[in-house]
Amino acid sequence: MTAHPSAPVEPQGVDTAAGHAPSASFEPLSPLGFLDRARDSFADRTAVVDGDRSFTYAELYDRVARLGGAITRIADGRPVAVIAPNSHVLLEAHFGVPWARVPLVAINTRLSAFEVANLVKHSESSVLIYDPSFAEIAAEVAKELPEVQLISSEDEYEALLASADPIPRPIVDELDVLSINYTSGTTGRPKGVMYHHRGAFLQAVGMMAHLGIGPDSGYLWTLPMFHCNGWTFPWAIVAAGGTQICLRKVDPSLIWEHLRSGAVTHMCGAPTVMSMIAFAREAEPMAHPVKLATGGAPPSPAILRDMDRLGFNVIHVYGLTEVYGPAVLCVWQSKWDDLPGDQRAKFKARQGVSNVVGTTARIVDLDGNDLPRDGESVGEILLRGNNVMLGYLRDPEATAQAFAGGWFHTGDLGVMHPDGYIELRDRSKDVIISGGENITSVEVEQVIADHPAVLEVAVVAMPHEKWGEVPAAFVTLKDGQDATESEIVDFVKSRLARYKAPGRVVFGHLPKTSTGKIQKFVLREEMWKGRERRIQ
Amino acid sequence: MTAHPSAPVEPQGVDTAAGHAPSASFEPLSPLGFLDRARDSFADRTAVVDGDRSFTYAELYDRVARLGGAITRIADGRPVAVIAPNSHVLLEAHFGVPWARVPLVAINTRLSAFEVANLVKHSESSVLIYDPSFAEIAAEVAKELPEVQLISSEDEYEALLASADPIPRPIVDELDVLSINYTSGTTGRPKGVMYHHRGAFLQAVGMMAHLGIGPDSGYLWTLPMFHCNGWTFPWAIVAAGGTQICLRKVDPSLIWEHLRSGAVTHMCGAPTVMSMIAFAREAEPMAHPVKLATGGAPPSPAILRDMDRLGFNVIHVYGLTEVYGPAVLCVWQSKWDDLPGDQRAKFKARQGVSNVVGTTARIVDLDGNDLPRDGESVGEILLRGNNVMLGYLRDPEATAQAFAGGWFHTGDLGVMHPDGYIELRDRSKDVIISGGENITSVEVEQVIADHPAVLEVAVVAMPHEKWGEVPAAFVTLKDGQDATESEIVDFVKSRLARYKAPGRVVFGHLPKTSTGKIQKFVLREEMWKGRERRIQ
Repeated sequence: MTAHPSAPVEPQGVDTAAGHAPSASFEPLSPLGFLDRARDSFADRTAVVDGDRSFTYAELYDRVARLGGAITRIADGRPVAVIAPNSHVLLEAHFGVPWARVPLVAINTRLSAFEVANLVKHSESSVLIYDPSFAEIAAEVAKELPEVQLISSEDEYEALLASADPIPRPIVDELDVLSINYTSGTTGRPKGVMYHHRGAFLQAVGMMAHLGIGPDSGYLWTLPMFHCNGWTFPWAIVAAGGTQICLRKVDPSLIWEHLRSGAVTHMCGAPTVMSMIAFAREAEPMAHPVKLATGGAPPSPAILRDMDRLGFNVIHVYGLTEVYGPAVLCVWQSKWDDLPGDQRAKFKARQGVSNVVGTTARIVDLDGNDLPRDGESVGEILLRGNNVMLGYLRDPEATAQAFAGGWFHTGDLGVMHPDGYIELRDRSKDVIISGGENITSVEVEQVIADHPAVLEVAVVAMPHEKWGEVPAAFVTLKDGQDATESEIVDFVKSRLARYKAPGRVVFGHLPKTSTGKIQKFVLREEMWKGRERRIQ
Repeated sequence: MTAHPSAPVEPQGVDTAAGHAPSASFEPLSPLGFLDRARDSFADRTAVVDGDRSFTYAELYDRVARLGGAITRIADGRPVAVIAPNSHVLLEAHFGVPWARVPLVAINTRLSAFEVANLVKHSESSVLIYDPSFAEIAAEVAKELPEVQLISSEDEYEALLASADPIPRPIVDELDVLSINYTSGTTGRPKGVMYHHRGAFLQAVGMMAHLGIGPDSGYLWTLPMFHCNGWTFPWAIVAAGGTQICLRKVDPSLIWEHLRSGAVTHMCGAPTVMSMIAFAREAEPMAHPVKLATGGAPPSPAILRDMDRLGFNVIHVYGLTEVYGPAVLCVWQSKWDDLPGDQRAKFKARQGVSNVVGTTARIVDLDGNDLPRDGESVGEILLRGNNVMLGYLRDPEATAQAFAGGWFHTGDLGVMHPDGYIELRDRSKDVIISGGENITSVEVEQVIADHPAVLEVAVVAMPHEKWGEVPAAFVTLKDGQDATESEIVDFVKSRLARYKAPGRVVFGHLPKTSTGKIQKFVLREEMWKGRERRIQ
């Protein structure tokens, strides 16, 4: 730290020259501190409910301190991977793994065994904690990576905690790596997004502030907790002293059971989750309003109307794995309350403004110049702030590319309205968001290209009623070879998570530029014609 | 910054070795950034209302950028002092002065000319911006300190802005001094509490989170803005994009006018402000609830009942100048809702738990050992965290004493209940809190001791119906000398702010220890007998 040239006042009694050593007036920002505070202030309150089990904050603290002790002993200073549904185990890992000063790798539960092994390997994780429902995948990982220690989250995990010595919260550097979150692209070059303690602390407090989370809040886990560390909600709810209700699967009947109980005040989920809720047999207007943050695709006027009728206050958020989830949100202004429903929905479908800890969003042209705030000029969305990742794990090239010019390049295209609210118009050519999960076209293309009958292939997003988007594959077969649509689809399913399989396979020649580059925009155009936006 | 020994992962693409240079993923925390965001996101919304004037966020930004330009030109890199009622000028100074990378010194408007000059001198301020209502005081300062540039906040200030070149928000180090806030003790050794950008940013976001402040919030300025920088609300409301309504004096009729208008959602003030509101002729239940944060003394069951009936949601907070105001707050838990009124009031009278950005509070005995959480063991309250001051300006000795053992010593005595909530029982012997303002007994003692008839004097707090506490003076006269109670009171008023004058003067011998030390606790005992707590 340096004093600026005109600094008129040198702080007394604080050794600023020594940097940021903890002192009475400097504590490294870390979401782990939230648990210390919750244990001190809300010891007897329910921290987590997971089926028949529930833990108070005192109990959660004890389990985390033990997990920290155990991980310190067994992890050899390397990351710890977890594959588990939304559960107390995955929640405990969000605190207990970094408690041992090693990063958490929360793995997408929809990936194939091949993909999981690839991520465990790439992250150099020494331990894989797995829910028994993933025993087969764990066995495959064990075959591939015999040096990785496997721990079943049932009996082995409980035995580990019981035998461990609890340790106090570690003093970290606030820029230490807290977790590694993989975006898609797992069959190609996996991109491990590194979160730091400072960013997660700030994003969590930001979520608490924007969504009004307090000690009486009940958060229902409909968003996958592995997804951007559950948008930092595992930490945000503990910051507020609220209760997290784990939901192992997105089951509309179960969701409505919890909603009817009155224990839920907040939840998050992709628009597909809203559809499931709104169209469920059990759907009926609730006695108390529930705030629901949705992202991944703009909510439609129809679903907003339905959710409104049921008593949901829908908050539209926007972000990517690289920015801890909701870096931008459609901060609602009461002057829009009295607009007719369709116009209200138009405002709500905007991605919005950067959250209070994020500070800055821009929309720029290809040369990096800011575009006019006219709601018409389309450019790339750039973000900057403390809730931007440290970089991609062991991939300085991809990191440098993402951070070109000192801004994080989202790859998403949008406009800025005159009032400063951003609206997405198109997405990075490579990303398909299906039911809230990212798929990159390249990972699907690489698998299809492996099929013996395939000469070349291009994958783009196509709109889908239920999932928002699904991949569409355009395939040219080798001369004299044959393959059907369902053969291609099954081939993808044998290698990748099922949700990555194309919703449609079109055979024929691919449109190319004069230099031989496939013109993907022509293929996208075909799939999206007649629509205003190229995202759903 | 240093990597910890077991660091398994070196961040890629982020030059952590270079420290904390701004980058796509690191921005120095500063409340000034809130104004950039508000200008970008809420340009047309009303930022501030001050009588007949009001400014949008675009306008506020422009005025601040100009003020920053002007201060850069004239302040010679030294602090800028402001003496003004709650007003757009003082609000602008909270952004515009640090915008020029110099600290703001917001001066207590109730001080005497002598005290004001003393603080301007001690802070080495180069400029004093004064509201015309303080013209006399400014003239006195000019006499005493001819080198200080005086700027009247009416015409001279507006001319300064009009002629200034606006400058962009500066890049600061987050531990740079943002402001200097003087606690009392001004006739002795003034204590200039140094706030930094990081602490103010965090405290402001914490206030936003705990009080649920959003873009539709209207904040009524009943707390003095000079008091701990208005508990960081000048920044917190901008962070949320809300509207600040300035109130130049705490006038119950004016307050009720604003409350009736429906524009107010939040306010802060000492319990005396609540009494004024509740007992005003205009008091009547409101259509919309208003959140009111109160501190300085625990609210009584009676006032809580009255405020509840009127529609106020009272949040009890606790803090000191040294911790940016409310470092601790009585986070309300719904399980207390159904208790009988008096028991509810007992819970609400607790000071509570540290706020979400503060992390840790302790109660310790004289040897610094933590006391049991039994609601009975009385010890000193210690605080630690990012919302603790950097230290006292140019007073390493007082700073070292306040930070003994790496914790900030509040000097306040309290108990911790089994649930982790703190309750104050007694206050530092030297501090009297009267109508929310601090008075130290020593400053009153020094003045009284100057009176020609006085041999020795001791000042302690005594309870007072309206102001909570007022000073009580115990005086021994010199042999053969005479003085009346009103002579002593008038003598104090001629030297100090009027509210520092004793409410009672008792003549006689002072109780002493065998070594001759005045036994203040005996005097306090006399004033407080029959009461459960020694604060009010």
